[in-house]
Amino acid sequence: MENIKAYVQEHKDRFINELIELLKIPSVSADTAYSHDVFETADAVKASLEKAGCDFVEICDTPGYPIVYGEKIIDKSLPTILVYGHYDVQPPDPMELWTSPPFEPVIKKTEIHPEGAIFARGACDDKGQMYMHVKALEYMVQSNTLPCNVKFMIEGEEEIGSKSLSWFVERNQEKLKNDVILISDTGMISNQQPSITTGLRGLSYVEVEVTGPNRDLHSGLYGGAVANPINILAKMIASLHDENNHITIPGFYDNVAELSLEERAEMAKAPFNLENYKKALDLNDVYGESGYVTNERNSIRPTLDVNGIWGGYTGEGAKTVIASKAFAKISMRLVPNQDWEQITELFTKHFRSLAPAGVTVKVKPHHGGQGYVTPTDSIGYKAANMAYTETFGVPAIPVRSGGSIPIVALFEKELKSKTILMGFGLDSDAIHSPNEHFGVFNYLKGIETIPLFYKYFVELSK
Amino acid sequence: MENIKAYVQEHKDRFINELIELLKIPSVSADTAYSHDVFETADAVKASLEKAGCDFVEICDTPGYPIVYGEKIIDKSLPTILVYGHYDVQPPDPMELWTSPPFEPVIKKTEIHPEGAIFARGACDDKGQMYMHVKALEYMVQSNTLPCNVKFMIEGEEEIGSKSLSWFVERNQEKLKNDVILISDTGMISNQQPSITTGLRGLSYVEVEVTGPNRDLHSGLYGGAVANPINILAKMIASLHDENNHITIPGFYDNVAELSLEERAEMAKAPFNLENYKKALDLNDVYGESGYVTNERNSIRPTLDVNGIWGGYTGEGAKTVIASKAFAKISMRLVPNQDWEQITELFTKHFRSLAPAGVTVKVKPHHGGQGYVTPTDSIGYKAANMAYTETFGVPAIPVRSGGSIPIVALFEKELKSKTILMGFGLDSDAIHSPNEHFGVFNYLKGIETIPLFYKYFVELSK
Repeated sequence: MENIKAYVQEHKDRFINELIELLKIPSVSADTAYSHDVFETADAVKASLEKAGCDFVEICDTPGYPIVYGEKIIDKSLPTILVYGHYDVQPPDPMELWTSPPFEPVIKKTEIHPEGAIFARGACDDKGQMYMHVKALEYMVQSNTLPCNVKFMIEGEEEIGSKSLSWFVERNQEKLKNDVILISDTGMISNQQPSITTGLRGLSYVEVEVTGPNRDLHSGLYGGAVANPINILAKMIASLHDENNHITIPGFYDNVAELSLEERAEMAKAPFNLENYKKALDLNDVYGESGYVTNERNSIRPTLDVNGIWGGYTGEGAKTVIASKAFAKISMRLVPNQDWEQITELFTKHFRSLAPAGVTVKVKPHHGGQGYVTPTDSIGYKAANMAYTETFGVPAIPVRSGGSIPIVALFEKELKSKTILMGFGLDSDAIHSPNEHFGVFNYLKGIETIPLFYKYFVELSK
Repeated sequence: MENIKAYVQEHKDRFINELIELLKIPSVSADTAYSHDVFETADAVKASLEKAGCDFVEICDTPGYPIVYGEKIIDKSLPTILVYGHYDVQPPDPMELWTSPPFEPVIKKTEIHPEGAIFARGACDDKGQMYMHVKALEYMVQSNTLPCNVKFMIEGEEEIGSKSLSWFVERNQEKLKNDVILISDTGMISNQQPSITTGLRGLSYVEVEVTGPNRDLHSGLYGGAVANPINILAKMIASLHDENNHITIPGFYDNVAELSLEERAEMAKAPFNLENYKKALDLNDVYGESGYVTNERNSIRPTLDVNGIWGGYTGEGAKTVIASKAFAKISMRLVPNQDWEQITELFTKHFRSLAPAGVTVKVKPHHGGQGYVTPTDSIGYKAANMAYTETFGVPAIPVRSGGSIPIVALFEKELKSKTILMGFGLDSDAIHSPNEHFGVFNYLKGIETIPLFYKYFVELSK
């Protein structure tokens, strides 16, 4: 398929500029202040699908942000690929740590990206990776090489739990009917070593509120005599892990799928250098659950992290106050067989039980999703591996990711089809962090690789 | 002294309105955004002292906010009373909890203050209580009853550690020479039961910073594999108290002055109703150090409270991030014989030792001060008690306060004179909290009582 290489070379500047325009719209779904921008981004995605060659594109209203649906049906007897992606992005803060404004994309060279990388919130997660599929379709339509039917479903609530997507999928099973689901919202090992994500962690995200006295108090007059909600919250959070960094919630590990020693040995073959890992994060040491190595701790093991905490006086200088309330946002990453709703209940019950008589506790579930594992002997996996092998010159390695794409489990349940996670980002792309970026090499390589997946998937389906 | 009662009745509306004008200036010393207002307040205090009848008033520059000094010397052979107060106030936040704007004073009736109370930041702490002394001087000058010399020293950094005051006192010992120091910056038991504060707690205030990875990380890709600074900070804070709520810092209790059973029995005589205490704060139960009752926990025992904590994503919705840094403001209330600088060192050393290899820790001392106890057999104490007895009809009860006025220990050291803490506020006045207020009854009663202290102090000094 030399033509695709040539086509990408010829149009790469336009491909990059079109993505940059999309990245300029701050579609932060977590903050209603950006609500207008999220809707505007949906319109931009719709226009891009029409331009790329879809026969039919619509903006589907939902209880939340709209879902952009597009399709090109060339022959009902041929296989159908459903492409999923999301046009919403994570909040950009802390703003002060960005070296360039998060919604003013710029291309900068880095050690890992000598050809340059596009720096902007959403560059990799997921506008950049989603847009690769739009440009791949453009090529196949222009070159008349589209070998099957294609459907696009691009949502705007992935970063806040995809509530409306579940609602939409449950109501549109016929419309979304497909033979395989293709998603680029994960990473690969390196630009020299492609990989395919075969497993994802589930998620349970909650917010907790600890209330002590009915008003802020003078810490001199009341200090030592009443429960301080911040001290209590710290105590409660601390008790959620034991000295081996096992999570102490009763029943938490009951359904955890344990890997065999063989499987763990297979995982250990993936290239990984602990010293480089620590160096990249400026860490003296890693930290985690006893009995597991770093690549297991962040993929096949469930975890509990506080994502945010606040309470009392956080301004300049000193205020001698005992706060009335303290808050934390806590998320648990889950592994296959752990049910996120059950885990949320276990957490809630246990966390409430930790509160002493001097405080009251509220636990508010935010959202969640199940973990997922995909078999490596499926047609979809083989087609993806063949595509990577052709463009990168080496076969892809199957890896379990620590991240969560809760809707993958939803798709299997509602649409009865497998998902293939063809990611082209890198762990170092700082998704969810300041200075998120996406390599120009990765972006263009993705556009090259995707049509090959279509080709091989159709061939293997015959 | 019937005249003072009549004078207060005749001028009370003006007294209240003058105080309200002073309360309108937001002199928040902790936040540089209010810097201009702090200076403006100093000017207002200077003008009020001149108007009240001081012969000489000046604004004394310091490395920080200025100190207003005023004096009226009628006869060098007579005793001299040094009045101390502060014109700065605590930050008003959380603003949303104020029922009326903190710097737009209004008078509202409450259950405890049927004659009404002035609601504003600083109404009680300390503009209102400081201004009682200005109005008491006005009366004594107008009625020609000032029995001795008086000096005023009103500072603008009490809420941030009185750094410049120490600097000033050390350099002006001759100018500040006095026979007794009079301060109204504490409370009394109730409007029916006056009390005199005979003890104060010391203070050590620090800010801590825990740093993990060099940037915010995606909690899915890194969760479980690196130390999460917020989880670690929670663990470190939790470990500062044991299961009996004793503070675990090695050496922390070494110099704590233990009270005799007799002294504790004496303390227990002060009227206190635990049910009302819990009801006033909407608490199911109190919480504190084993082996001590509430009135001991908040006065004769040292404590450690987190005054503020922040880190990670604290905005609307959910963000699955592992923060690079987490922060907390922590203060320790100390008792007599504990040296605040030594305690700060013990805390710093211990807190650093709690950090696992995966994080780095910074401890930044903010400010502090020593505890203090004043004898009840001094002329000053007796004069104060006689004054209260005359205006309230019952003798005052000596109480140990949990609050800190670090400069009281400084005065004893530098000026070699005792301090009398004649407070007229109530614990329920919500100082350092939203809706701070000061009873009109308390304000006027204070103006009535102060001239009696002058009278009896001079008589007993003969």
